[in-house]
Amino acid sequence: MTTRAETTAHRGGPSPTGQLALLGAAATAAAPAVARSSSLVRDQALRLAGDLLEADAAAILEANGRDLERASASGLDATALDRLTLSDARLAAMAAGLRQVAQLPDPVGQVVDGWVRPNGLRVRRVRVPLGVVGVIYENRPNVTSDAAGLCLKAGNAVLLRGSSSALASNVAVAERLRAALAHVGLPPGAVGLVTETDRETAVAFMQLRGVIDCLVPRGGSDLIATVRDHATVPYVEDGDGNCHVYVDRAADLEMAEHIVVNAKTQRPGVCNAAETLLVHRDVADAFLPRIAAALAGVELVGDERARAVVPTMGPATTADFATEFLRLRLAVGVVDDVGAAIDHIARFGTGHSEAIVTMDLPTATRFTTEVDAAAVLVNASTRFVDGEELGLGAEIGISTQKLHARGPMGLTALTSVRFVIEGDGQVRR
Amino acid sequence: MTTRAETTAHRGGPSPTGQLALLGAAATAAAPAVARSSSLVRDQALRLAGDLLEADAAAILEANGRDLERASASGLDATALDRLTLSDARLAAMAAGLRQVAQLPDPVGQVVDGWVRPNGLRVRRVRVPLGVVGVIYENRPNVTSDAAGLCLKAGNAVLLRGSSSALASNVAVAERLRAALAHVGLPPGAVGLVTETDRETAVAFMQLRGVIDCLVPRGGSDLIATVRDHATVPYVEDGDGNCHVYVDRAADLEMAEHIVVNAKTQRPGVCNAAETLLVHRDVADAFLPRIAAALAGVELVGDERARAVVPTMGPATTADFATEFLRLRLAVGVVDDVGAAIDHIARFGTGHSEAIVTMDLPTATRFTTEVDAAAVLVNASTRFVDGEELGLGAEIGISTQKLHARGPMGLTALTSVRFVIEGDGQVRR
Repeated sequence: MTTRAETTAHRGGPSPTGQLALLGAAATAAAPAVARSSSLVRDQALRLAGDLLEADAAAILEANGRDLERASASGLDATALDRLTLSDARLAAMAAGLRQVAQLPDPVGQVVDGWVRPNGLRVRRVRVPLGVVGVIYENRPNVTSDAAGLCLKAGNAVLLRGSSSALASNVAVAERLRAALAHVGLPPGAVGLVTETDRETAVAFMQLRGVIDCLVPRGGSDLIATVRDHATVPYVEDGDGNCHVYVDRAADLEMAEHIVVNAKTQRPGVCNAAETLLVHRDVADAFLPRIAAALAGVELVGDERARAVVPTMGPATTADFATEFLRLRLAVGVVDDVGAAIDHIARFGTGHSEAIVTMDLPTATRFTTEVDAAAVLVNASTRFVDGEELGLGAEIGISTQKLHARGPMGLTALTSVRFVIEGDGQVRR
Repeated sequence: MTTRAETTAHRGGPSPTGQLALLGAAATAAAPAVARSSSLVRDQALRLAGDLLEADAAAILEANGRDLERASASGLDATALDRLTLSDARLAAMAAGLRQVAQLPDPVGQVVDGWVRPNGLRVRRVRVPLGVVGVIYENRPNVTSDAAGLCLKAGNAVLLRGSSSALASNVAVAERLRAALAHVGLPPGAVGLVTETDRETAVAFMQLRGVIDCLVPRGGSDLIATVRDHATVPYVEDGDGNCHVYVDRAADLEMAEHIVVNAKTQRPGVCNAAETLLVHRDVADAFLPRIAAALAGVELVGDERARAVVPTMGPATTADFATEFLRLRLAVGVVDDVGAAIDHIARFGTGHSEAIVTMDLPTATRFTTEVDAAAVLVNASTRFVDGEELGLGAEIGISTQKLHARGPMGLTALTSVRFVIEGDGQVRR
């Protein structure tokens, strides 16, 4: 049987070769079986995969050791080496993640809405799997099981393309996922791992039209830029988080201090950490020295008005305000009012998460209405913009684009919706 | 004030020049005002634009006359000329369309869902405009008002790029839309018409990152292919409709006849018309001669098994089954069972609209569950897959991709969703 993928290639699309073609054909062939499987079976596969990650820990850690050895020799930095490192505890966390996803409600088959037309047609929109989800990611091998687990739960086949540095680890993890699928009678081809890690293959991966129904890039801005420039398959963007906290004139300054400290320092290396603090001019004298003291250990750079209050701050350039530091550095600016804060965020924000601290209702309403971001927060830390924290169960990423999914992407972001229309012989006049 | 668009350009994106840059800046600047405007004001603008299309009919038809003269001289075919032609009746229909959109419920501000987290955070998801919608379309000038009306209703600014053949007509229509915006106090820059109609400008239009939040292509497969290959802005796909009707063994053959005739002939030039008829082998002898008679005037091409029953049919090639004819030609195949019909559709379908005629419940359920298309129909004509027919009010297109919007796209497809998270000082542990 020729698949639609082959038909598409036949129609003039680029024809992938070698491993990509094989994995793509296997995933395309497997997708309908996964889509039609009951959630009981898929959940069983996820739990079993978790068990295998723990039972086969020695073999997986041995593979990870080979990756680490190669990475050290090639001079990978300490942060990257840490991200690459697996351990019994990390494998247990990956297994726990799979079991947690198994417990989430099945999104497939949900009736989103429905109605009857005047001519008697019965219309409903039903949640269905996307088909084949492609995930391209950087050097954290836990993404292999996290992403595959979410994709399978939502009834999809998944094609994974991790980094070369984590290759042996990813192969070891993917083998356990495939074994679990086979054990419950689902096609192992529903989890495909691309082991050709050169750039040409990455670009060809992004162009698997007719195979990949949705591409999810998980990585830094270089990866996102490559996807934007080269992808011909549909994709969601998991972009930068240049997040702001604006402390309004009407803020409770003690609350503001806790929120700013939390947003900046609780985990500075993640996308929902704060990178810029904006302070209303009327509270700058009271708040800036206080927050500077509370943020001891954080490098502060400020605009002229902030430095006039706290002269120990270094000067902030325009580039500072445009940068997602992902470390203990914070840009500080003083603004005239909430409108100026909104304008600053419109200029420098990346549409991720933006917070205001205020007790004034009209100011809060204006901020939440006018700030154009995936998430706007009032009197809460930006760190809450996360699938688990918001109650979505688990997340495949945080979308900073506006189509399909925006903000933390849970299982429904890995599904589509189909119109089902039932009649009794209706024809159109 | 530097806009995010300029920041993006500054960050290394392509910097559009000339008209595109000006229109893009105007639309970006106008978008927040449209987003914040009340639906009362936007609806007033839409009704007024409708009034102006009728009041200024003479001037618009004069401009259209110039387009038609130029198009005739350049040898445009009769179908294209007809699509390009405006008349008092067509302007009245465009005006009525704007007034109808004005009457639809406002999607902006709808609370999609909401909940409270255990830590007291109040989470809700609110429907918001996309921002700036780009529409690139071919030679029908009515799209100028139809598309702009829907985009404005959903709180967006819109950038329009029509074809060179309709340039004067599009300018004349867009002028009335801009005048209506100005009259109600909204920025006329919220409707921008690109008058540079060369291919380079079209490609640059598809790459207006930081300006266009969603690109909607309205046109043939060449346009869609250009978008796939060149767009770097997010887009939805309004793809081909190679639609099938499968007549099952358990079909009421009289109902099947009405549905097939309607799906093929009621308006053969549109994407939800049927292009292939599949018939279960057990009813082929009874149904094929009957439908061949009912489809007098339609050119039938069949596979060997269909031709064995109706020898007057021409032979159907694989290409016939893969083609969206958009005219009075129908490919006919005989299949062994519903599974073979589903396989045929998986191979040749474009994911648009697929119908089954059957009285057997398990067969209908299998078809609606396993056929992967934007819309699946049971005992109804494919021609119903249309925004107005399904009750969505009006449509900006029919999406054949699976992300963001699938099937007929109404106003909600022109919106995004934002998380609004309210707390009382919560920080993350």
